[in-house]
Amino acid sequence: MTASDLHARSIVVDGLNVCNWSGEIFAEWREGGVTAVSCTCAIWENFRETSLNIAQWQRWFREYADLITPVRTVADIHRAKSEGRTGVILSWQNTSSIEDRIEFIGLFRELGVGVMQLTYNTQNYSGCGYVEETDSGLSGFGREVVAEMNRIGVLCDLSHVGDRTAADVIAHSAKPVAYSHVLPRALKDVPRNKPDDLLKAVAEKGGIIGVSVFSPGMPKGNDSNVEDYVDAIDYVIGVVGEDHVGIGTDFSQGHARPGPFMEFANRDKGYARLLTKFGHTKVLKPKGISRIAEMPNVTAAMLGRGWSEDRIRKLLGENWLRVLDQVWSV
Amino acid sequence: MTASDLHARSIVVDGLNVCNWSGEIFAEWREGGVTAVSCTCAIWENFRETSLNIAQWQRWFREYADLITPVRTVADIHRAKSEGRTGVILSWQNTSSIEDRIEFIGLFRELGVGVMQLTYNTQNYSGCGYVEETDSGLSGFGREVVAEMNRIGVLCDLSHVGDRTAADVIAHSAKPVAYSHVLPRALKDVPRNKPDDLLKAVAEKGGIIGVSVFSPGMPKGNDSNVEDYVDAIDYVIGVVGEDHVGIGTDFSQGHARPGPFMEFANRDKGYARLLTKFGHTKVLKPKGISRIAEMPNVTAAMLGRGWSEDRIRKLLGENWLRVLDQVWSV
Repeated sequence: MTASDLHARSIVVDGLNVCNWSGEIFAEWREGGVTAVSCTCAIWENFRETSLNIAQWQRWFREYADLITPVRTVADIHRAKSEGRTGVILSWQNTSSIEDRIEFIGLFRELGVGVMQLTYNTQNYSGCGYVEETDSGLSGFGREVVAEMNRIGVLCDLSHVGDRTAADVIAHSAKPVAYSHVLPRALKDVPRNKPDDLLKAVAEKGGIIGVSVFSPGMPKGNDSNVEDYVDAIDYVIGVVGEDHVGIGTDFSQGHARPGPFMEFANRDKGYARLLTKFGHTKVLKPKGISRIAEMPNVTAAMLGRGWSEDRIRKLLGENWLRVLDQVWSV
Repeated sequence: MTASDLHARSIVVDGLNVCNWSGEIFAEWREGGVTAVSCTCAIWENFRETSLNIAQWQRWFREYADLITPVRTVADIHRAKSEGRTGVILSWQNTSSIEDRIEFIGLFRELGVGVMQLTYNTQNYSGCGYVEETDSGLSGFGREVVAEMNRIGVLCDLSHVGDRTAADVIAHSAKPVAYSHVLPRALKDVPRNKPDDLLKAVAEKGGIIGVSVFSPGMPKGNDSNVEDYVDAIDYVIGVVGEDHVGIGTDFSQGHARPGPFMEFANRDKGYARLLTKFGHTKVLKPKGISRIAEMPNVTAAMLGRGWSEDRIRKLLGENWLRVLDQVWSV
């Protein structure tokens, strides 16, 4: 089978996009053969602001019904595939949206939010992000938050979470958890990348590691290309096995870099101290996988390594389907 | 057929309760043979406060699953009937909950809110309540709010709305509207009661008038009984016909009168100027229909007048089903 045939026939799940959403992005998902994608609808936003973001998604679902469709179950992803539309999983990079109320997790689940990252970069009521100097671990409130996600059927994401808090969540959660968009620290030792022991712990919990397309986390930095991306996937497979690895591009297409969104994302609470330099330094996407439309190149690079179609299908989306189904079925 | 048989076999819909919700209330709905009931979950509350109220209902749906079940469609009401549970329609007595954002109507519809009263007693962004000295009618914002209710499938309730605003809504709405809990002004001339022309206008729009069990709005006041209640129903039938009349008790069981909830309900925004004296004066419920458990007495009183089973079934719930189905089907 050719790479483009394999890509077109596979369920392709992208574990994270944080684009400047528009009809152009939605059309490019179709071009890139993306079956379903987890879309950030909260980073620092509070309860009301996140609700407005979700209302905006409801408008997009109406206006772009030919391109996108909301996802609440794995059956919805299969439906999207058969309809030739891209399924949108609403997701958060922070639990700021629930403010101080655990029961808001259930309300947002009803509104379609299926994945919630516990913390984004810094400390919140539930735990610490990876840029805090000291990570105090999962808080008492955080334990209740994770238990409610388990009960309601929301996937807990740990990508920007501090290592100690992440380890606590993995131990505490009754369900699989995810690193939706990460790279391995063993390949490049930066705080945002994840150590092998935590990658393993996520896999042993039955979860998934979505490998991100983020040059600063790759050994060659801005000189990386799609082969380096598949190297990272290959490395993670070596650590956790091919059943626990997927894609989580972290594409932020449509946002200027530097620009107001990157400024918002990289400051604590969206406006306070600067947390990372990524919003201000030159970050090139890897050649060959620099934008959504190039997703089929990943499939081609995997095939080029002699990987089996079975393995490639797992990596492209089937592993995501299994984990989402386990977590969302309540 | 005996009255109790007829009551037990009928779909009984109560167009408004504003009780101090508890397992005792839910059990009494079963005792009173109530198939479905519209439950106020917002009077003055803002976006976040109403969301918390709805989260509380989600807990009750879980904790009292043997007694109650959420209603989003008319099929849910039939399901409730067959399961021997009471269906709960979440409803508002004010659009304060959407604050300044029309798109929140859609979010709350997804969370189960099927009926929204445009204003409660006083003026808000959309229009005027019945206690304002001057009613400026449906505002420009209010026209957009009503249009969004129409589009999304939310029943617009006008019970506490000012007459001019109500007339504007009836003219403007593309779908049937409701007086969920009112009495006729022709029987007692108080501002809260509704004039015949507006009752007729609601009916001509295809809507429904839920007749309320509220002594201060009845000719005999605190000396009223269940026959006086059926007199009020009979009067409204005379004005609009038997296809546009239903029950909307306005039961506030479990709240002390006077007491903190009545104080909240009867002050503007929940705390400001006192709007009505009903929270502080002695209000006796009519004898024979003083509480939920006595609902079957209404059926008995109707049968006692020689009304046909067909008519009684319409009044008990079938008229409500028709209107809800028309509005909720989008």
